[in-house]
Amino acid sequence: MSENKIINLALVCCGTVGGGVINILTKNHALIKKRLGLELTLKYVVDVKRPDELDEKLFPGMKFCDRIEPVINDPQVDIVIHLVGGEALEREFILSSLKKGKHVVTANKALLAKHGAAIFREALAHKCHVGFEASVAGGIPVIKALKEGLAANHIKAIYGIINGTANYILTSMQRAGCSFEDALATAQAKGYAEADPSFDVEGIDSAHKITILAELAYGGLVDFNSVYAEGIERITLNDLRYAEEFGYTVKLLGIAQMNQKLDVRVHPAMIPTQHLLAKVDGVYNAVYIEGDMVGPTIYYGQGAGREPTASAVMADVIEIAQRLISNRDKNAGDYNVLNYFSKNSLELLGPENINTGYYIRFMTIDQPGVLAQISGVLGAHKISISAVTQKERHAGDIVPIILMTHTAPEQAVAAALTEVERLSVVKEPPLKIRVMNELSGEEK
Amino acid sequence: MSENKIINLALVCCGTVGGGVINILTKNHALIKKRLGLELTLKYVVDVKRPDELDEKLFPGMKFCDRIEPVINDPQVDIVIHLVGGEALEREFILSSLKKGKHVVTANKALLAKHGAAIFREALAHKCHVGFEASVAGGIPVIKALKEGLAANHIKAIYGIINGTANYILTSMQRAGCSFEDALATAQAKGYAEADPSFDVEGIDSAHKITILAELAYGGLVDFNSVYAEGIERITLNDLRYAEEFGYTVKLLGIAQMNQKLDVRVHPAMIPTQHLLAKVDGVYNAVYIEGDMVGPTIYYGQGAGREPTASAVMADVIEIAQRLISNRDKNAGDYNVLNYFSKNSLELLGPENINTGYYIRFMTIDQPGVLAQISGVLGAHKISISAVTQKERHAGDIVPIILMTHTAPEQAVAAALTEVERLSVVKEPPLKIRVMNELSGEEK
Repeated sequence: MSENKIINLALVCCGTVGGGVINILTKNHALIKKRLGLELTLKYVVDVKRPDELDEKLFPGMKFCDRIEPVINDPQVDIVIHLVGGEALEREFILSSLKKGKHVVTANKALLAKHGAAIFREALAHKCHVGFEASVAGGIPVIKALKEGLAANHIKAIYGIINGTANYILTSMQRAGCSFEDALATAQAKGYAEADPSFDVEGIDSAHKITILAELAYGGLVDFNSVYAEGIERITLNDLRYAEEFGYTVKLLGIAQMNQKLDVRVHPAMIPTQHLLAKVDGVYNAVYIEGDMVGPTIYYGQGAGREPTASAVMADVIEIAQRLISNRDKNAGDYNVLNYFSKNSLELLGPENINTGYYIRFMTIDQPGVLAQISGVLGAHKISISAVTQKERHAGDIVPIILMTHTAPEQAVAAALTEVERLSVVKEPPLKIRVMNELSGEEK
Repeated sequence: MSENKIINLALVCCGTVGGGVINILTKNHALIKKRLGLELTLKYVVDVKRPDELDEKLFPGMKFCDRIEPVINDPQVDIVIHLVGGEALEREFILSSLKKGKHVVTANKALLAKHGAAIFREALAHKCHVGFEASVAGGIPVIKALKEGLAANHIKAIYGIINGTANYILTSMQRAGCSFEDALATAQAKGYAEADPSFDVEGIDSAHKITILAELAYGGLVDFNSVYAEGIERITLNDLRYAEEFGYTVKLLGIAQMNQKLDVRVHPAMIPTQHLLAKVDGVYNAVYIEGDMVGPTIYYGQGAGREPTASAVMADVIEIAQRLISNRDKNAGDYNVLNYFSKNSLELLGPENINTGYYIRFMTIDQPGVLAQISGVLGAHKISISAVTQKERHAGDIVPIILMTHTAPEQAVAAALTEVERLSVVKEPPLKIRVMNELSGEEK
């Protein structure tokens, strides 16, 4: 660390979140200085092109460059904020920063979900911190809650609404009574969804995030490629309406829980309407974490966006700076995190071993005996039906039949649905939504 | 710190929360050792009487004593957990621990709200940590969220449901349709309320907690004795029902927000029913914190109870232990907290300067012209009425008249109510509940 009570920062990539970091460093400069007891100085901004809005008058002495080498070779730089995104380049940049003894802050969930082990090994070797609060649930300090606030707890379950785009789409479908496609178009028009929304709506982004949370909670590496992810693309407005009738709200959920093996997955789920998680609407995120001692806890806020994400980035920067201050003579690795990301891999429960209730929608020709055929197949697989809805009747048309099942093994349900799909009266692959009846967190 | 990779703890007072600490140290011993990378050892338990359930076999080498001197004079003790409660003795114990260079963890909100400055000054002088996560909202890591997770934010507002007893009573009144007195009796029978419930129902406990949160958020000392506190004792089932009709839920709220001066207060408040805070039921707590960068965030969980509170105590113990490990050679004061608790006192906005909407219940004789008289007085004080309800009509009886006002100055409302109370038709002091229309946190 430089001598004169200054911590020097470098910002690599001044895109959306980088702009938020600049904004916080400008507007809340005095506040942060007061809280920290010394000054944070932005010494470098690295980008391929100089951002127009970057006002050097606000950061006297700041250097702009289009390569990372000057930053990592400057011994005065203490903390490098990496916001390039993507995987290959970001990984290379982060590893080279760590090799030069720089502390690192990143928001890159895809990178951490896939290459967390390599990054944390390098950090340990060079006694550097890696802050990644912004990688999950944007501005909500949920990494901190899990890693520190609940450190004395065995984690029983994590249920996260951790993709604002998907949640916005589901909320708008229900509120505006519109289709998935229309809600997606609105989300894109408002800037809540990207031109290619597949990562968000297919559950990949949520899978990155729940992988990171599961690794922290259960203290080992999770093979991201083995995490089951299913998106919301096939959910229709009718599914949301039927769910409502049965007393549920549909949310895209990242799930991590220990069931002998670690059960990590992402899929749409039906949550009891009166549960707090069911009330999390629009672009907001919420993460439910249940500990064996603390019981159920929930963390709620904006899971994306320029300033909320930058707020989490800066929380990491401030925390690392504070550690550097109280420990001037040497760098101190974050043993806590490094113990979490130990070398052991966690064995995953295959999705075929899930046991849960199901909502199943069959699109069938409306003729006598169809329900009997379908329920016959389910019965043969020992799947017990708890409710049936078959509303719209137009002889000969394609109509939905909705079944709710009691808890059943996923394997049996999958086998039954394959069989049902072969029936000539069934006109498209059945849609299933898993039902979360076991959620706790209501009052005792 | 002792040499051989052990952190030695002492537990002062093995009451309810102390029992939870013992439970966590026993059941989650291996987990904590794995996360921390070394062992936490309970070296002393101090209490006036040896707890029956204290099983020494679980803590080999543990010493029981009925005085604190052996603990603070033992150089091997690293962290002292203070759970005596009360003020004078706890203060003396904590200060003497700090003087001997022991790190301290406490759950004592009354002590911190009143004597935080003295304690943090002593801690700074001896480079010791003081952990107090358990002092506010039990197991919810809200101190950590505010102090670290949102450290880059100007805090715009804090609204906390931070007393589980009061929240349980309000929820049961509404659900069971019972009186305040019956709900209190149930809470006492279930162990959610003490024999003397005054601290909880009168808002004093919430005032302790919001004082601590306000000091952290706004970086200075708050004079606890100047914090306005009003309880829920006068709320009737009818008030809850009327609130519901108008689209609100009544909660006892701790409020801290900057309005030129710092506005810190505790009172029942009407929250829009669709807001997440309105859904926080029973003994659960939730704290809404709005930052200028992160926007609205909410933290939810159990705000009291043996294991939840012990979970927060142990989170502090683990964090201090982790800092001791990464910084073996010397103690490191928590500059971050100490910067917050700087010497400057924060000037408080008097409750007379509040501007808000009001629900007001007048108990009047049912005769023609009463509403005209009351609304005349309010009009003379320039208080504008937004809604009126006057349902039960029994000529000559005492009946409630309910008025909802637009935003008005508290001073004008107080003056008007004093005047109304003098009217011969008004039979008891009017009850007012402040209306929180400005709460944000719903989707954009």
